[in-house]
Amino acid sequence: MYRTHNNGELKTAQLNQNVRLSGWVQKIRNKGFIIWIDLRDRFGITQLVFDSERTPKTVFDAAEKLGREFVIQVKGQVIERESKNPNLPTGDIEVLVEDLVMLNTSKTPPFTIEDKTDGGDDLRMKYRYLDIRRNPVKDKLIFRSQVTMAVRNYLSDQNFVEVETPYLIKSTPEGARDFVVPSRMNQGQFYALPQSPQTFKQLLMVGGLEKYFQIVKCFRDEDLRADRQPEFTQIDCEMSFVTQEDILNTFEGLTKHLIKKTHGISVENFPRMTFEEAMKTYGNDKPDIRFGMKFGELNEIAQHKEFKIFNQAELVVGIAIPGGASYSRKEIDKLIEWVKRPQIGAKGMVYVKVNDDGSFKSSVDKFYDEKDFKAWAEKTNAQPGDLIAVLSGKANETRAQLSALRMEMGNRLGLRKPDEFAPLWVVDFPLLEWDEDTQRYHAMHHPFTSPKAEDIDLLESSPGDVRANAYDLVLNGNEIGGGSIRIHDKNMQSRMLELLGFSEDEARKQFGFLMDAFEYGAPPHGGIAFGLDRLVAILGGQESIRDFIAFPKNNMGRDVMIDAPATLDDDQLKELGLELKMGKK
Amino acid sequence: MYRTHNNGELKTAQLNQNVRLSGWVQKIRNKGFIIWIDLRDRFGITQLVFDSERTPKTVFDAAEKLGREFVIQVKGQVIERESKNPNLPTGDIEVLVEDLVMLNTSKTPPFTIEDKTDGGDDLRMKYRYLDIRRNPVKDKLIFRSQVTMAVRNYLSDQNFVEVETPYLIKSTPEGARDFVVPSRMNQGQFYALPQSPQTFKQLLMVGGLEKYFQIVKCFRDEDLRADRQPEFTQIDCEMSFVTQEDILNTFEGLTKHLIKKTHGISVENFPRMTFEEAMKTYGNDKPDIRFGMKFGELNEIAQHKEFKIFNQAELVVGIAIPGGASYSRKEIDKLIEWVKRPQIGAKGMVYVKVNDDGSFKSSVDKFYDEKDFKAWAEKTNAQPGDLIAVLSGKANETRAQLSALRMEMGNRLGLRKPDEFAPLWVVDFPLLEWDEDTQRYHAMHHPFTSPKAEDIDLLESSPGDVRANAYDLVLNGNEIGGGSIRIHDKNMQSRMLELLGFSEDEARKQFGFLMDAFEYGAPPHGGIAFGLDRLVAILGGQESIRDFIAFPKNNMGRDVMIDAPATLDDDQLKELGLELKMGKK
Repeated sequence: MYRTHNNGELKTAQLNQNVRLSGWVQKIRNKGFIIWIDLRDRFGITQLVFDSERTPKTVFDAAEKLGREFVIQVKGQVIERESKNPNLPTGDIEVLVEDLVMLNTSKTPPFTIEDKTDGGDDLRMKYRYLDIRRNPVKDKLIFRSQVTMAVRNYLSDQNFVEVETPYLIKSTPEGARDFVVPSRMNQGQFYALPQSPQTFKQLLMVGGLEKYFQIVKCFRDEDLRADRQPEFTQIDCEMSFVTQEDILNTFEGLTKHLIKKTHGISVENFPRMTFEEAMKTYGNDKPDIRFGMKFGELNEIAQHKEFKIFNQAELVVGIAIPGGASYSRKEIDKLIEWVKRPQIGAKGMVYVKVNDDGSFKSSVDKFYDEKDFKAWAEKTNAQPGDLIAVLSGKANETRAQLSALRMEMGNRLGLRKPDEFAPLWVVDFPLLEWDEDTQRYHAMHHPFTSPKAEDIDLLESSPGDVRANAYDLVLNGNEIGGGSIRIHDKNMQSRMLELLGFSEDEARKQFGFLMDAFEYGAPPHGGIAFGLDRLVAILGGQESIRDFIAFPKNNMGRDVMIDAPATLDDDQLKELGLELKMGKK
Repeated sequence: MYRTHNNGELKTAQLNQNVRLSGWVQKIRNKGFIIWIDLRDRFGITQLVFDSERTPKTVFDAAEKLGREFVIQVKGQVIERESKNPNLPTGDIEVLVEDLVMLNTSKTPPFTIEDKTDGGDDLRMKYRYLDIRRNPVKDKLIFRSQVTMAVRNYLSDQNFVEVETPYLIKSTPEGARDFVVPSRMNQGQFYALPQSPQTFKQLLMVGGLEKYFQIVKCFRDEDLRADRQPEFTQIDCEMSFVTQEDILNTFEGLTKHLIKKTHGISVENFPRMTFEEAMKTYGNDKPDIRFGMKFGELNEIAQHKEFKIFNQAELVVGIAIPGGASYSRKEIDKLIEWVKRPQIGAKGMVYVKVNDDGSFKSSVDKFYDEKDFKAWAEKTNAQPGDLIAVLSGKANETRAQLSALRMEMGNRLGLRKPDEFAPLWVVDFPLLEWDEDTQRYHAMHHPFTSPKAEDIDLLESSPGDVRANAYDLVLNGNEIGGGSIRIHDKNMQSRMLELLGFSEDEARKQFGFLMDAFEYGAPPHGGIAFGLDRLVAILGGQESIRDFIAFPKNNMGRDVMIDAPATLDDDQLKELGLELKMGKK
């Protein structure tokens, strides 16, 4: 037996007991005649003491040779500490060591195994197994495990059945690129790894399971942006005989439960907002509503004056930045530079200082008078002391630019508090979006999403105006879940695929199995999928998902620790019936 | 709202209530003036009644047009049935329908949606979504979900952390063939899908997580035998600072918990048996100990007589078949034919009838006398009325043949009861096994398994005699779990890889990351992995795993429902930097 206790549990209650402990050497203080060692394991730290007068000489000598991260096992007696450490659960005691077994040595770690480490990102990824020893990382992995258990228990208690769907499936042309897997037994053919279990969960609904969920890995062979992994985890859910309202209520319940469980906070009923309203009010379909700074559209009051730029713009829109009236000319110039950065793309920015005495100072003083600015302040809900920032141009672009500015200011002003939770349902998404590149409509959600009954007549005549029975759950400015009521009628599904440009043959080849299934009594159904990686990160009060993933990949999709992907030898390729194309490496 | 109740919950307590139900039309009885319909959902069946005198005419007319598996929604009143059905939880009531909405039609299903269906295997797989509507299949999927929840809750309660390990990893040369995944971003390179998360869970131990588990899909691109899937699910576990004893106790606890939870049966402490003993006693390293028929080795008492075949054999071994003394000559001949089938491969079979009066009748009467047979009966523990079946030949082959006969007789005699649970730990496996094909040693478990401390000296001198710290959990004749205490020392790991024929370069290339990790304070650790598919099937009282998998693949690794794998088009191949080899398809 390696231990009688872990390193987090010994207290004065165990005084004088003989115990056995195991763990890693965290810290050594050698005073010559006495050595203290902090022994660490997953559960905590216990102080060991080697006393040249009370510890056997061979044991004391062995202790002198220990280094950081050595793995040891000790036998000894729990004694009271002379100087107690109130910051440590085990701070009242120490263990006087009688016997020591060295279980393993350690080279000096390439970075410090402390809460604040001196290791950079790349180094920590290469030695991820050492990074995980650090409390902040270890605690995040444990947190993730607790959140997933909470999800499972909540859904199971509500009669959801977790069903495993296959990983080796068939490639579909929609959405992002599939990872494919050559089949040795069916040579020349390929499986695909699922981007989501979408069609399978719908088949489970046709199969009468009614309440399905699964926490499942999904795959996307896309160019990786920051914080997007080629493999990611989804909480995937589907229900039958439900309306959109039923689904929203069910998963609002789950989300409340998770916030309560992780933070002890009871969140009120989630507000709902249409896609259109979200775009108009926040310039964004996943607004962070922890703070205000709502958009004020100024077209009516700012156009038809002398200021040409506004007159020519499709949209003139502003926000009030709290306390911004005190910004210096230099600070404001910097803000203007910020919105003009290529990533944001604004042409410029008009500002109005709302001074504490009610007067205004603006970059467009010569075109507008106090009455105008008063109206602007009203529209943007600007208070004395605020700065009104106004952008103009094409509607969609301008909204995106102002949304970026709003988020930036939210961050700068500390309005995006990590321990505050502001969930929001965004509903009534458009069914389709026009793609300039391919000159055709794409499904905004996916091709299985149903149109709103009242908009069906517009499907062919005005496809862009059709709204979908689709909804996103937004938390603190992040889309954490999204779903829809599905099509369950074969004819409607055919009509949708036709609208998306599928020929009858293609539709049959790709989705024949699903449309066949719809002919055998498919029930009305719908569902939702949560991005677990992001959900866990937000519940954990962080923006980055990486630390919550045990072995993440870098922006090139590489696991630098195991050096994957790697080349295959020719025999392996031959056996798969493949060769590499010339001229590429 | 589609329903106020599900179809399993209405009782007399709800009499006279107005309810709304949804579901599938299971059965229609049309008496002309009255129509009864069994409405089915996941939760049960409720009888609907359409009465031409009490139901609105339009509704009654619509009901006349319904067919099997149509999806409907009804509104009506709960009334008392005239003839109650005590076999149905809702058998006391029926719902008098006032309104009917047809939610979907259905073509006539290709097989009956009944507990006993007329659909064959292939048809049921092609229309798996209809198969799942059948109670026996649906119940198995729900059962699987319950078992996995029980596993997770048990392990979480014991401080195990569920950690997701990556699916896109690096190919390793050991074991079965990997499925590989070409990388678009790193062209010419391939990920592999994990055969198990073995090295990652060891890295998590180096990372100090101490108690890890994961329920995880694994992949094996092997020729498929019956009931083996290319993707399968594992309960994967690893612990640090543990001895073999600690692991056996922990997972014996889990297994007891699962048997208790699913069957209400408390199983005694699991017996333990060395690999050697299992082979000698049952000819098998995963013996079914629900029944006896233990092997009796007869070399000492059956050799050195006149019977040449036995004299020349390396092993003479028999079992006593209960009640077999009553077999006719013809029945015995059939048994002899059975062991001589190519799949079994015995050359012949000697038998001895132990008659009720204590006399013997044998196929080798002329070589042996009653005293001999008495000794045989003693060795095989044969009782009056039994038949002793004796095989001979090379030791390993003969044991395998007799084991097959023992299992066959266990089945025929009904001794393998599906609701009886006889778990067993098999321990002390050999570390290595000799492979005739490659003329080298292979790791019996895997290259990370540690040798027993007392056998380490034999590693180079007598590798075949080295025993491993490895163990299997056997349940009712199936290996449901296997694991080992791992090597945690870099030098020992190098020595092992060398023994397995890895050059230093190869070892470095394949397992460098693991051996590097071992240099930074790797703790002693070990673990176990359970095959979830088989575990669930055995707990569910079945031999076949297929029904417990929502969407299984056939013996060619194909999902016949979605017709996967499939061909890619040339553009897709080109984008991956691949082409198909000529002459293959």
